Amino acid sequence: MENAIKLNIDYTGIGDHELMTYSEKINKIEKELSKNAEEHKDFVGWLNWPKEYDKKEYDKIKKIAEKVKRDSNVLVVIGIGGSYLGARAVIDALNRESSVEIVYVGNNLSANYINKIIDYVSDKEISLNVISKSGKTTEPAIAFRIFRNLMENKYGVDEARKRIYVTTTKQKGALYKIALQEKYARISIPEDIGGRYSVLTAVGLLPMAVANVDIDKIMEGANNARKAYANESIEENDCYKYAIVRNILYEREKSIEILGTYEPCLQYFSEWWKQLYGESEGKNYGGIFPAAVTYTTDLHSLGQYVQEGKRNIFETIINVKNSDTDIVINYDDENLDDLNYIAGRTVSYVNQKAIQATIDAHVDGGVPNILIEMDYLDEYSIGNLIYFFEKACAISGNILGINPFDQPGVEKYKENMFTLLGKYD
Amino acid sequence: MENAIKLNIDYTGIGDHELMTYSEKINKIEKELSKNAEEHKDFVGWLNWPKEYDKKEYDKIKKIAEKVKRDSNVLVVIGIGGSYLGARAVIDALNRESSVEIVYVGNNLSANYINKIIDYVSDKEISLNVISKSGKTTEPAIAFRIFRNLMENKYGVDEARKRIYVTTTKQKGALYKIALQEKYARISIPEDIGGRYSVLTAVGLLPMAVANVDIDKIMEGANNARKAYANESIEENDCYKYAIVRNILYEREKSIEILGTYEPCLQYFSEWWKQLYGESEGKNYGGIFPAAVTYTTDLHSLGQYVQEGKRNIFETIINVKNSDTDIVINYDDENLDDLNYIAGRTVSYVNQKAIQATIDAHVDGGVPNILIEMDYLDEYSIGNLIYFFEKACAISGNILGINPFDQPGVEKYKENMFTLLGKYD
Repeated sequence: MENAIKLNIDYTGIGDHELMTYSEKINKIEKELSKNAEEHKDFVGWLNWPKEYDKKEYDKIKKIAEKVKRDSNVLVVIGIGGSYLGARAVIDALNRESSVEIVYVGNNLSANYINKIIDYVSDKEISLNVISKSGKTTEPAIAFRIFRNLMENKYGVDEARKRIYVTTTKQKGALYKIALQEKYARISIPEDIGGRYSVLTAVGLLPMAVANVDIDKIMEGANNARKAYANESIEENDCYKYAIVRNILYEREKSIEILGTYEPCLQYFSEWWKQLYGESEGKNYGGIFPAAVTYTTDLHSLGQYVQEGKRNIFETIINVKNSDTDIVINYDDENLDDLNYIAGRTVSYVNQKAIQATIDAHVDGGVPNILIEMDYLDEYSIGNLIYFFEKACAISGNILGINPFDQPGVEKYKENMFTLLGKYD
Repeated sequence: MENAIKLNIDYTGIGDHELMTYSEKINKIEKELSKNAEEHKDFVGWLNWPKEYDKKEYDKIKKIAEKVKRDSNVLVVIGIGGSYLGARAVIDALNRESSVEIVYVGNNLSANYINKIIDYVSDKEISLNVISKSGKTTEPAIAFRIFRNLMENKYGVDEARKRIYVTTTKQKGALYKIALQEKYARISIPEDIGGRYSVLTAVGLLPMAVANVDIDKIMEGANNARKAYANESIEENDCYKYAIVRNILYEREKSIEILGTYEPCLQYFSEWWKQLYGESEGKNYGGIFPAAVTYTTDLHSLGQYVQEGKRNIFETIINVKNSDTDIVINYDDENLDDLNYIAGRTVSYVNQKAIQATIDAHVDGGVPNILIEMDYLDEYSIGNLIYFFEKACAISGNILGINPFDQPGVEKYKENMFTLLGKYD
C-alpha cells in the first residue's frame, strides 16, 4: 500500500543538494540501527517490530480487550511517560465509539485528580491495566496500590484478580513478580524497546483495542512505514529528510520546534511527540526544544509570537486534509457578521484555507515550515505517522551525536525525591 | 487581607541589589500605567478594574447565571483567545460542582470537534453565551451561526432568544447590532480592556458564575492584589520582582520560560498565561517564548530536556501547598514495589517532596527557578494570581520596550485567509 503521509520541505528554504551532503552519515546510521535491531541490543527493537511482533501475545491482547468490553464500563490505565502518552495519543486522535471508557491515573501526584477518578469509577464496572517496566516508578506504583485496594474491596480478591491486567517485562522486575504471585494476566514489554518507543507494543495496544481502535490497521500502517522508510535514497525517504532538515535548522539557530495541528483531538499526539523528541535529544546541554500548538485556537494566543517573536523557531505542521464529518456554513439574510461570502462552504474547507494562509504568513515572517500531509486521520495513517516520527527521531538524534535511547537526566529529581522522602534512612 | 501568593526568587541567582537598578524605570512605567488607566486610554482599563468594575452590570451577570442554572444543563460558550481561555482556566482550576456543564466552541475550525459538541448537547437543555468584541472573528462567528440556528430549530425563535446571552462592546460592532436587533440579553466588554486582560470582566465572569465559581471572591482576591501590587517599593512588590527577574534572565540568553504546575487542573491556566505573555511580548523579533509543563507527568517527558538540554530556559513554578482532598498511601505486606517507606504518608505530601526535589535538580542543572507559592487553590488566590500575572506582564513588556497591549502579528494570517477564501473578490 501507499504511504499515508507525505513530507513537504518546500517552505524550509533547504534544497535537496543540502540534504545530500548527509548521505554518508545517514548510510552509516541506518546500518548501525539495523545491526543493533537484529542483535536485539541498544533499544532498537522498535525498528523491525511492526513485522516481527509476537503474534501469540498480540492475540492475547485482543482476547483481553474482548473480555474487558464484555464486563466493564471503565478501563483504568495506570502508567506515566511512555507507558501512558502513546495510548492516549492514538485513542484521543481516533475517538472511536466504545462501550468502555478509558481513564488514566498514575501519571501525576495530584490527590484531587486521583480522588476525582475514584469518585467517577465508584459506581461503574472496572478493569485495570497497570503498565510499568520496573513496577517501582513512584507515581504508577502509588496508583496501583490505591486502585488494587479499591478493586479488591469492590469485587473481592478473586474477582479483582480477573480484572487486573499487567503490562510489564517478560521475566524480571517488581511488577512481574507481583503479577506472577497474584496470578494476574500478563502481557509483555520487549526488553529492547524503551518507553517512548513502546506505543506499538502491548503498552499501547491493549488500551487502544479496548477503545475500539482497529489495532490491525495500526500495525499495517506501521509495517508499511517500516518498508517505505528503509529506502536508502534520501530523496525518496521522508524519514531521512525530516531528520536532516531539523538538524540543519538547529545549526541555523532555530532551537525551538513547534508541532502545529489543526484538530483538537491531536493534542495528546503532540504530547507523545514532545516526549519522543525532547527526551531523546535534550542532552549534553543541547537539542531542539519541542513545543506544540493547536491551531486555529493558538493563532489567537501564541500566533503573535510565532509571527513576530524571536526568530529562533520553526514549525512542523500536520495537515489532515479530509474531515470524517463536516458542516455547511448557513446563509444569513442580515449578514451583520459579514460571513455570507463563505455561506455554502464547509467548516473543513475554511480550515484548509486557514492552514495555507498561516503557513504563508509564518514563512513570510521568517519561520521555516515543515509540512506533513495526510488524507485522513485513521488507524492506517496514525500507524504510519508513529513509525515515521520514531525512526526519524532515532536518525535525528544520531546526526546530533547523542544517544536517542537513554534518559540519564530523568534520574536526578528521583534521587532528590527519594532522599527527601527518607527512602535511604 | 493578606496576599494569597508569595514570590520566591532565591533560586534565580539574582539578588535584590540587581533588582534595584530598575527602580527609576519601574517608577516611570507605574506612573504611565496609572495615568492611562485614569484617562481610559491605551487598554489599561484592567488596572483599576477590580475596584471600579460596573456593579450594575455585575448584578446582571449574576442574575443571568441564576437563570441559566434554573433552565439549562449545558452552557455553550462561544469565544476564542482572550474570549475563551480565561473562563476555562478558572473553571477547570476550581472545578466546582454545578448542575450546568460548560462546553466551548468557536475556538477552532475542526468540523469533527463542532459535530461532537452538537451531538453532545442535542438532548440537553441549552443556553448560549457568545463572546466577541467585533462579532466578525471567523471562528466564533461561524460557531454562532451554527449554534444560533440549532437553538432556533430546537426551541423556536422566541424561546431561543431568551437563552442566548451576548458579551460584547457597549455600543458598536456587528455582535452588538445583532444583539440589539434580536433582543438578546447583553453584558459588556469595556473598551479599554483588551482580550487577554479581560478574564475578570463579563467575558470570564458569566461562564464562571454558571460553573458555580464564587465570583465575589475572585474579585476580592483581584482587588486585594491591586492594592498590594501598587506598592512602590520593589522589595515589597512581587509583581515588580517577577517582571524584572524575567527581563534579567532574558538578557542572560534565557529565551524560553516554562510555567510548571503540579496539578493537572491548571492546564488551561497555563494556556491563559501563554497567551498573556506570548501575545504581549512576542514582538519586534524578540521576547521570551512561553511554554508550559504539567509535572510530575512531564518529568517523564520534557524532564530530560529541562535537566540536560540547551541551557536557554528558566522555569516559573506554581506550588499549591495544600490539597482540598487527600489520600493516604496504604501499607502492603509484600512490599514488592518498595513503597512501604512512604506508607501512611499522603499523596500530596509526596507531591510536595517531588516539587522540592525537582526544583533542586533543575537549579543544579543550570535552570533558574522562580517560585510562586500559594496555600490553597481557591477563588481568592486565583483572583490574586490573575491580577499578579496581568500587572507583571504590563510592567515586563514595558521594561522590554514593546507595547504589551497590541497584537499586530495576529492580522497577517487573517488577511491571507480572507484572500484565499475570496472575501475581497
